[in-house]
Amino acid sequence: MSLLVVGSVAFDSVETPFGKAEEAIGGSAMFFSTSASYFTDVQLVAVIGEDFPQEEVDFLNSRKIDCEGLHRVAGKTFRWEGKYGFDLNEAITLDTQLNVFGDFHPKLPESYRNADIVFLANIDPSLLLVVLEQVKNPRLVVADTMNFWIDGPKRDELERVLSKVDMLVINEGEARKLGGEANVVKAARAIQARGPKHLVIKRGEYGALLFSGEEIFFAPAYPLESVFDPTGAGDTFAGGLLGYLSSCETIGTRELRQATVVGCVMASFCVEDFSLNALRDLNTKAIEERFGLFEQLVGFGPLEPLDA
Amino acid sequence: MSLLVVGSVAFDSVETPFGKAEEAIGGSAMFFSTSASYFTDVQLVAVIGEDFPQEEVDFLNSRKIDCEGLHRVAGKTFRWEGKYGFDLNEAITLDTQLNVFGDFHPKLPESYRNADIVFLANIDPSLLLVVLEQVKNPRLVVADTMNFWIDGPKRDELERVLSKVDMLVINEGEARKLGGEANVVKAARAIQARGPKHLVIKRGEYGALLFSGEEIFFAPAYPLESVFDPTGAGDTFAGGLLGYLSSCETIGTRELRQATVVGCVMASFCVEDFSLNALRDLNTKAIEERFGLFEQLVGFGPLEPLDA
Repeated sequence: MSLLVVGSVAFDSVETPFGKAEEAIGGSAMFFSTSASYFTDVQLVAVIGEDFPQEEVDFLNSRKIDCEGLHRVAGKTFRWEGKYGFDLNEAITLDTQLNVFGDFHPKLPESYRNADIVFLANIDPSLLLVVLEQVKNPRLVVADTMNFWIDGPKRDELERVLSKVDMLVINEGEARKLGGEANVVKAARAIQARGPKHLVIKRGEYGALLFSGEEIFFAPAYPLESVFDPTGAGDTFAGGLLGYLSSCETIGTRELRQATVVGCVMASFCVEDFSLNALRDLNTKAIEERFGLFEQLVGFGPLEPLDA
Repeated sequence: MSLLVVGSVAFDSVETPFGKAEEAIGGSAMFFSTSASYFTDVQLVAVIGEDFPQEEVDFLNSRKIDCEGLHRVAGKTFRWEGKYGFDLNEAITLDTQLNVFGDFHPKLPESYRNADIVFLANIDPSLLLVVLEQVKNPRLVVADTMNFWIDGPKRDELERVLSKVDMLVINEGEARKLGGEANVVKAARAIQARGPKHLVIKRGEYGALLFSGEEIFFAPAYPLESVFDPTGAGDTFAGGLLGYLSSCETIGTRELRQATVVGCVMASFCVEDFSLNALRDLNTKAIEERFGLFEQLVGFGPLEPLDA
């Protein structure tokens, strides 16, 4: 199946307790497409300014990511600045400069319009609706969201997006807020009732919960000794999830569960270094080996019959 | 194998966003022994005052919990008062009245001294050392701990306890503090280096991590729609864990993993009602069924060969 992503490409300046990165390559579409590229071909829609290095576009091409929809326009590339404390689960945004991303009006190349799986990264809900009008007959439409849109003036558009997507990928705190429930299961059910059949709730170092129809699946995050920078981990997770699904012949419970674990596998690589660094040079063997570590992490045998 | 618990019996007054319980039956030894009693016979060491209802002692006896070590003395039973906000992972203690527990000097009946598995619930580390001197040749010594002892003047005794136990069961925040590391894996390794070969880190609604030698195992908490009162969930978890281990012929990796899931199973019942209520009337079938739900919750198939 073909996979289309619409999102941001950015320069990220990040400080964590373990170091700093200045104007490193980032943005939801960068993390997503790089991660997904280990499983399938990706079509990318995003906007960059004159200052974005051509070698990074070359890197995307080298990963077989179709960049026909990556538009370079006059002006500066989107910039985000943030920091993390020892609780690496939550970023504090210090500065956001939308620059060319402020005027982003995604226009899909003709060759993208038959995409089977569409991932709408964390962008303005009204833009998501514009994208959905351009794709012909997608099998799975997936959106990410964030507090900014849940709290903001575009709440109506967000609800319309919800009613049109098959899957939503969202942080736990955002799920509670969007679902209007403190209990995560109740929040999930409230969100599913408004549209998405599948809901993936990202819990940072605690892993991810997949709600698929009535079913619940839990995938852990890998307990790593060295977590340097969680920036992009959520988009990298989504890239692994949907990249793997794109490589499957059907999308059923089994594939959704495996794909959620693959998402956690890819996120576990992402956080081991700043920016995209840990994702640039992966290979099939390293991914399969880490998937094996996840199998070991959660595997347990059947209960002996109880007779107390 | 025989299982001995030394801990508290108390009256708990608890307020959660979902209701209130006044002077309900609680205490680490009550939750632990009730939970463990579904898997094995339990020997209980604790102290109660004149005000503790005989019908609750009868309840323990009805669950085949040996109460020879449950001493009734002049005075009032230990009382704890606390509340929880919507984040049910952390209790706020409003009041503690040690009463008869303040003079607790655990003396083991002769018949208890050959116990195979010893659980030292969250009590004063110096008392733990007194208990350890009275057991003859235990196969597994397990302690729980809490911030009060980690921060307090008994830190030296706590370190001595650490050097003498085979397993420590601890909350995630406590693990970070005791291990002196923000990263949970590093914290675990630092604690293991000081004694316990096995370390179980409780993460509330996110489940539990088992560190056993070099191995790591992750068991999720069950995502429940109705969590009423987390009081006692940690001790109920430990009761399931060690009760199940007591029913096994050997204690190896396989049994430790299963036991950790059984702990999560029992905790998932505990939080569904106030006090001990949800634990009073369980049966083997209900426990096995919920274990099955955990298998469904985390199960996923092998990765298809990647060829991207």
